[in-house]
Amino acid sequence: MKLPSVASLLIRVYRTTGPVSHIQRIRHGAVLNKNYSSVSAVKNCTALLYRNHGEPSQVVQLESLDLPQVGAECVLVKMLAAPINPSDLNMLQGTYAILPELPAVGGNEGVAQVMEVGDKVKTLKVGDWVIPKDAGIGTWRTAAVLKADDLVTLPKDIPVLSAATLGVNPCTAYRMLTDFEELKAGDTVIQNAANSGVGQAVIQIAAAKGIHTINVIRDRPDLRQLSDRLTAMGATHVITEETLRRPEMKELFKSCPRPKLALNGVGGKSATELLRHLQSGGSLVTYGGMAKQPVTVPVSALIFKDVRVRGFWVTQWKRDNRHDDEALRHMLDELCILIRAGKLSAPICTQVQLQDFRKALENAMKPYVSTKQVFVM
Amino acid sequence: MKLPSVASLLIRVYRTTGPVSHIQRIRHGAVLNKNYSSVSAVKNCTALLYRNHGEPSQVVQLESLDLPQVGAECVLVKMLAAPINPSDLNMLQGTYAILPELPAVGGNEGVAQVMEVGDKVKTLKVGDWVIPKDAGIGTWRTAAVLKADDLVTLPKDIPVLSAATLGVNPCTAYRMLTDFEELKAGDTVIQNAANSGVGQAVIQIAAAKGIHTINVIRDRPDLRQLSDRLTAMGATHVITEETLRRPEMKELFKSCPRPKLALNGVGGKSATELLRHLQSGGSLVTYGGMAKQPVTVPVSALIFKDVRVRGFWVTQWKRDNRHDDEALRHMLDELCILIRAGKLSAPICTQVQLQDFRKALENAMKPYVSTKQVFVM
Repeated sequence: MKLPSVASLLIRVYRTTGPVSHIQRIRHGAVLNKNYSSVSAVKNCTALLYRNHGEPSQVVQLESLDLPQVGAECVLVKMLAAPINPSDLNMLQGTYAILPELPAVGGNEGVAQVMEVGDKVKTLKVGDWVIPKDAGIGTWRTAAVLKADDLVTLPKDIPVLSAATLGVNPCTAYRMLTDFEELKAGDTVIQNAANSGVGQAVIQIAAAKGIHTINVIRDRPDLRQLSDRLTAMGATHVITEETLRRPEMKELFKSCPRPKLALNGVGGKSATELLRHLQSGGSLVTYGGMAKQPVTVPVSALIFKDVRVRGFWVTQWKRDNRHDDEALRHMLDELCILIRAGKLSAPICTQVQLQDFRKALENAMKPYVSTKQVFVM
Repeated sequence: MKLPSVASLLIRVYRTTGPVSHIQRIRHGAVLNKNYSSVSAVKNCTALLYRNHGEPSQVVQLESLDLPQVGAECVLVKMLAAPINPSDLNMLQGTYAILPELPAVGGNEGVAQVMEVGDKVKTLKVGDWVIPKDAGIGTWRTAAVLKADDLVTLPKDIPVLSAATLGVNPCTAYRMLTDFEELKAGDTVIQNAANSGVGQAVIQIAAAKGIHTINVIRDRPDLRQLSDRLTAMGATHVITEETLRRPEMKELFKSCPRPKLALNGVGGKSATELLRHLQSGGSLVTYGGMAKQPVTVPVSALIFKDVRVRGFWVTQWKRDNRHDDEALRHMLDELCILIRAGKLSAPICTQVQLQDFRKALENAMKPYVSTKQVFVM
């Protein structure tokens, strides 16, 4: 599968306004033009480019790229902040389900400020904060010319780190809590990888709705500290993978009902154990596979317990809802209300400069990382 | 889980009409009463009873049981024919999801004729053909007193073997083809265990609707003969498990689209391979686990291909629709139309007498059995 839409649209936009230069080789949102004389105040940008797949910190380079003129339906944006997500790393490694043509700029998420708008743009104005509607923008850069239709505004009264990390993890958490089971206050959700970006958002969004969460994490040196942090966020129970497999789990179900929904970011045994604790007719939704093992489902759970096994990919959801701006708008508004109310915080972040990318990428690859690397431009 | 409804209802009915004798020990539909003087023409029956779980042919015994009086809401029926299904064997072995209290009469499916009706029965009349609405009747017997509400009529113009085998396998096939994906003529369904009772019904019902079927069977001595038989029934393609795993499968998809629906009666590798051939967004529905191995689903199939993994159990469907007679009636009517049109035949059956039960049970346990054992009373 090749990355469609954003990058190819940009190239099409560019082609209508000027001669084709070597931009055709750069498809991943990084549109540059050494031959074109732009009227924009910002004529170039610094970006984290990769020309080959491989070890993330090795294949990425910091480069200066020229920007094209701002076409009638485009905007010039200054990037404010952009995180390193696990899917970005998989893209660099060449193992993700969608891969841009190379060379490409890394990063699929982030918040930017509009600096200049094309003549026909009605939806955005200078100063607006925007995030990409879809993956494929190439967000690890200081500035970009983007099609206005590929962006959606965010209010400027939320923290910049919340804005930069809103479009992937909290949206994934929100949709998984909304689209698979009808959950109401008092219901229970169980999840593994509870310390991931998605996991933390699940805890907070569920808590805001009065939904119990049983949160499974791997045993680790700072277990108590992490457990306390998740509990402070609103987690009902925090348990280790080992506890998940023990008979004493039944004690836990004296204080909350068996879960209707299980969220799986791990796979393997962990997923099978989540399933085991589900209510009859409940759903297991997989959004990640950290353990690199498949999801194994006993036949009896399917036939006699009617468990439903599904997957979720926020990129696909955004594409399926590409022409329904209301659905995306409604979700972002709800999440921003939670952020303003102090009920949904950004994950703990380490802010890094673009030039420190090698260390940031290496840190993002380490196991048991409890902080998200975010480029701040 | 204990068998509810039918048997316990019968006992409740009996209790309103006469003294309680040792019938309380027989909960599995087999209601008998040595102390009661019945006004029915038929006062007792012969039944295949089991008092312990174990090897089917060893634990079953042929016994004579007295029948209770026909209560106001009950009917006396003469059993005409009743098959041995895999789930019946699992019940005898004690490995099924629902198990009756022992002693119990074996068998959960079959067709009977009404011989006498209670005063308050409006839905049935003498001479009607009836089948049970739910599992738990104990059908391997010559006669029974049953609650009218637990029975549904079938037209008498279909073959008795079709009637005796309609309620489980064809109903399972019909619902799986109806409830999980919206299938239209030209779509494809893939299934393993294509030679099972359910598999044969799937082939015929799908063919009647113009739906392609890809039918996977195990390699065996009479492969060609079996393949020809399934093709004559309407199978689009018949392949072996080995072929299912080979690259030449893509040749097959030149003549029919990739399946929206995969039906799994096997589990293990076979189920994973069915999944691999599904369309994006398609469903794998498991109704059996002949291989005694779980269903293993790659994480990427869930996240990036949005495959949906579900289970189906016709007994649960019947219970969920217990108070919606229309749903059951509509399905049976549709199936009877197919039977009359020569589009849905009973599986190849071996008719046996109740007294030959040991040999019948042994035959039903053999692998690669291509004929269903049916008791004819």
